[in-house]
Amino acid sequence: MHKEKALILCENSFGKYLGKTANGLVRHSERFEIIGVIDSAHAGKMAHEVVEGAKEDIRVYSDLKTALEDASKPDFLIIGVATIGGMIPEEFRPVLIEAIKNNINIIAGLHEFLNDDPELSKLAKEHGVELIDIRKEPPLENMHQFSDLCKNLDTVRIPVLGTDSSIGKRTTAIELVKALNARGIKSVFVATGQTGLLQGAKFGVPLDSIQGDYMVGELEHAIIKAYEEEKPKVIVIEGQGSISHPAYVSGSRAIITASQPNGIVLQHAPGRKYRNYRKKLLNLPMPDLREEIDLIEIFSKAKVLGITINNESMSDDEVEDIMARYEDEFDLPACDILRHGCDKLVEQIKRIFPELN
Amino acid sequence: MHKEKALILCENSFGKYLGKTANGLVRHSERFEIIGVIDSAHAGKMAHEVVEGAKEDIRVYSDLKTALEDASKPDFLIIGVATIGGMIPEEFRPVLIEAIKNNINIIAGLHEFLNDDPELSKLAKEHGVELIDIRKEPPLENMHQFSDLCKNLDTVRIPVLGTDSSIGKRTTAIELVKALNARGIKSVFVATGQTGLLQGAKFGVPLDSIQGDYMVGELEHAIIKAYEEEKPKVIVIEGQGSISHPAYVSGSRAIITASQPNGIVLQHAPGRKYRNYRKKLLNLPMPDLREEIDLIEIFSKAKVLGITINNESMSDDEVEDIMARYEDEFDLPACDILRHGCDKLVEQIKRIFPELN
Repeated sequence: MHKEKALILCENSFGKYLGKTANGLVRHSERFEIIGVIDSAHAGKMAHEVVEGAKEDIRVYSDLKTALEDASKPDFLIIGVATIGGMIPEEFRPVLIEAIKNNINIIAGLHEFLNDDPELSKLAKEHGVELIDIRKEPPLENMHQFSDLCKNLDTVRIPVLGTDSSIGKRTTAIELVKALNARGIKSVFVATGQTGLLQGAKFGVPLDSIQGDYMVGELEHAIIKAYEEEKPKVIVIEGQGSISHPAYVSGSRAIITASQPNGIVLQHAPGRKYRNYRKKLLNLPMPDLREEIDLIEIFSKAKVLGITINNESMSDDEVEDIMARYEDEFDLPACDILRHGCDKLVEQIKRIFPELN
Repeated sequence: MHKEKALILCENSFGKYLGKTANGLVRHSERFEIIGVIDSAHAGKMAHEVVEGAKEDIRVYSDLKTALEDASKPDFLIIGVATIGGMIPEEFRPVLIEAIKNNINIIAGLHEFLNDDPELSKLAKEHGVELIDIRKEPPLENMHQFSDLCKNLDTVRIPVLGTDSSIGKRTTAIELVKALNARGIKSVFVATGQTGLLQGAKFGVPLDSIQGDYMVGELEHAIIKAYEEEKPKVIVIEGQGSISHPAYVSGSRAIITASQPNGIVLQHAPGRKYRNYRKKLLNLPMPDLREEIDLIEIFSKAKVLGITINNESMSDDEVEDIMARYEDEFDLPACDILRHGCDKLVEQIKRIFPELN
């Protein structure tokens, strides 16, 4: 399949929390061929020197001009930041204008829509350039109501939830799907956020852009569609936020009630002390792992089947220690899938669901 | 204060689940003087013969024509149904058209907007009539992010949650505010749904119309505004759905994390076997009261301080029996506030929060 070429705009955020869309795209992209990232703070480096697990041929540029001189011409400029509140950063505007003037299409996954911006949409029209807002809610008449459909599906449904936002849920989910498929267990990924959709997920919804009344029904519909079109043995659903997160209240719960899970993978960053959400301002403490597991199991009436670890702020030894401790304390497999792969998780899934063998 | 006159369109649903907006408005309305209800199924009756607790001077009419002949001319026609999915019922269209042609403004709290309907909005313009959609989300740049502000407010915050949707949370909340104010404890109501807003609540948001990322922040902002403008001793927040409801996942959680409650009132209908949501199709069982209390207390880290009873499908004796049973089993006051008033609840609140005396 021919992939369209895309450059990612991530000034000042690549490798960081707010750069999660860029960080995801340099790791995995089915729809686009990523030809570069713009972030002057890392200009001259390769993406994998900034983001662990990134592909090795992606260069980081100081600005759009330099990128266009060096790389082949992109079809798209992707806005690679996930700002809190979802506004387009004002300092991106001159770059977006420059891109449009260079006849490059722009794609964004923010709450603020490119197409609602009079200046950008006028300019785009003049240059015959497309502005794509992937986080736009479908029209009301196309949305679905919760219909209690997943519980009877003949497929194992496993959401990858987490103890915080931007902690690696999507990356783990995608790697788990790859690993299951590699073992001959047909599996499908269902995205619930803008990055997964930008990466080219065939199934999914921009969950946190959907009004409350339709969140569960829309996600349920995406899961049913994935089942009907692919007839997979396993559906892995990307988590959102965390079930205990005070600002992101609906993601995890919508994912649980929509999917009616058979088991849950929980992603955690033992080295993270405060939630990423408006960190310096609020200092919201990370949840206790045991309490988080309890909350998830009470709500979902399903069991957490494995713990996956985000190794940020941890040495290799610390990761090894914590894995051993969690395996002992929770009697569950624990692994850092970026370093160790998904073998332990796949073994556990095969053990719990013997019908997959 | 001069109230505008309003007629409520509730064909086929008055007194029922889907008629909740009408049912609420005939009980309590600060903004409008309700001059009648249209529902041919109850034509000729008075509203209080259909809806317990309704004001005694509201007549039910078979259609708009009859209402206009009998009652004084309304300023507004209010769409009094809360349809699942929030679409305008197609059979209402001729009535809306007739109303516009009679120069009556229309107000709706549905997800489908009157103003987005080309036929209605064209006709409204021709007749100089206003179409008001109260459930429209504010523009992105006016919405607020969660800021962890309520925990330090010098006011007692009490959400009225429930075990199902359309079970009496709003009615209980409003009656509780009236009762507290009558005892000299200054209290304010914060609405979270279209009916409360239509009733004229000074503070509130249409919570389930707001996209996930902004739900908590927007409600928190409404609570802070209520505090700053009124400096009440108690803020009572209307609940939405139920914390265990599979389709309405975000309401209760958003209300809990936004308000950071000091205590919670729980509304329950012991005679209800199945959730109202798409009842005949899905047969979702009602939650167990003990499990619901546990879920609420785990999530909110606050205590349920009283149980209020919706007496639907119950005899007076059954209500008395269940009250006694709950008081014994949960060691909490239980009352049917429509029949017994809020005395027990107020006493309990004064006992738990002695600073209110």
